[in-house]
Amino acid sequence: MTRIESRQNATLKHLQRLRREKKYRKTCGEMLCEGGKMLEEALRSGADVRNVLVRADAPLPDGARQAEARGARLFDAPEALFSLASDVETPQDVVFSCACPHWGTDALTAADRVLLLEGLQDPGNLGTILRTAEAFALGAVVLCEGCADPFSPKVVRATMGAVFRMPCVFLPLTEAACRLRENGLPVYATALHEDSEPLCSVPLSRAAVIIGSEGRGVSPQALALADRHVVIPMAGRAESLNAGVAAAIVIYEMTKGGSGK
Amino acid sequence: MTRIESRQNATLKHLQRLRREKKYRKTCGEMLCEGGKMLEEALRSGADVRNVLVRADAPLPDGARQAEARGARLFDAPEALFSLASDVETPQDVVFSCACPHWGTDALTAADRVLLLEGLQDPGNLGTILRTAEAFALGAVVLCEGCADPFSPKVVRATMGAVFRMPCVFLPLTEAACRLRENGLPVYATALHEDSEPLCSVPLSRAAVIIGSEGRGVSPQALALADRHVVIPMAGRAESLNAGVAAAIVIYEMTKGGSGK
Repeated sequence: MTRIESRQNATLKHLQRLRREKKYRKTCGEMLCEGGKMLEEALRSGADVRNVLVRADAPLPDGARQAEARGARLFDAPEALFSLASDVETPQDVVFSCACPHWGTDALTAADRVLLLEGLQDPGNLGTILRTAEAFALGAVVLCEGCADPFSPKVVRATMGAVFRMPCVFLPLTEAACRLRENGLPVYATALHEDSEPLCSVPLSRAAVIIGSEGRGVSPQALALADRHVVIPMAGRAESLNAGVAAAIVIYEMTKGGSGK
Repeated sequence: MTRIESRQNATLKHLQRLRREKKYRKTCGEMLCEGGKMLEEALRSGADVRNVLVRADAPLPDGARQAEARGARLFDAPEALFSLASDVETPQDVVFSCACPHWGTDALTAADRVLLLEGLQDPGNLGTILRTAEAFALGAVVLCEGCADPFSPKVVRATMGAVFRMPCVFLPLTEAACRLRENGLPVYATALHEDSEPLCSVPLSRAAVIIGSEGRGVSPQALALADRHVVIPMAGRAESLNAGVAAAIVIYEMTKGGSGK
């Protein structure tokens, strides 16, 4: 264990930049995660943990020594320095960096049920969607144009660990749709149009569904590209679903379609 | 329009206390809301808007004069003072106080579909649940033991205006269950037990469903009290649904059960 005693420490600076800079995360291929529970999730998922920083006055989290045994470097720092690396108001006892998980586009090849996200900018919603997608064992999530960085601290936190396991592919929408169709999956777009079909009336056991942003919905391009337009039937006011909630209902129906229930 | 020029201004202090103090909100029967969109929602919903504070250098939001015409007091303040009343890092151009909406327990009498929340502490999730409940036209949401204050700024924000319209009742769980049964509604609890029935196999067009907190689930008391235990069937890892997502899927199934789809 190495003690960090200065703001100028290279590892502390590295963690701070991972916290703040998307471009730096991309260059390093690393992301910043927080908390003992997340460290356990990372280790359980076989993630490549690189640097573990604990608060000097806190008990050593269970995963810290295990991470060290797997090759991670272990640091501690007094609270004032430790908190510089944290992304939350009330920091937990450990922050760590690990390699960003990487899935190639071949993750789409075997997938029966795929979500395509377009313009999903809210980090909390994106994280929740990845978490829900994993809970329902979706094949893959594709991040198309205009989505938040799935490796930003806020997204990682909202995934509750699903970020380590849920196959997540970066592709432009048109290219993703093309590949999915090659594998025999129809591509649907969620849309509040009058001609849209209710979600539960469409076969979803093998399908890809495009979800747009909360404010704008899916783009005209996405609507034009889609084989069918589907809508979540609502009894109340139509515009008012959170993007994470809308995606969850789509994922739930896809899973029901898949299991024949 | 009255200019606020000091931190000691009574209205500014009032708004700050509404922002921070649950007890003060309860005593005053007022809550703090933010943003032009929310002000429009409040006015559209017939909420009793009391004080409107705008940033001195910003254009007057559409709703400000309308609120004044309905009896609200209108203030402006320079940015440094204005931001003291705001609950967000990047304040919008207007904050306002309005009377907390109040629904008596008779909101339960005519309700066919009711959600009972137990230990729902996360403000964002609670707000999302109220928003989803309104979108699907649920009859009422009951806040039982251990829930966040629905009139805190974070909850209000996450409801996107549903807080003004969604009937929301405060009752202990046993009393709520008793009243709902008197109206002929069975009471179900969501539970990850092996003997739980899949959500979609249970009639939900007239029912009340208990949802617990994300970490702990519903209490043993709730399980004992419930007529049946239901579970959201998942293909993946069972523990991993966000509470707002779990509630949304339950609400969605209730609505499908209600419409016969």
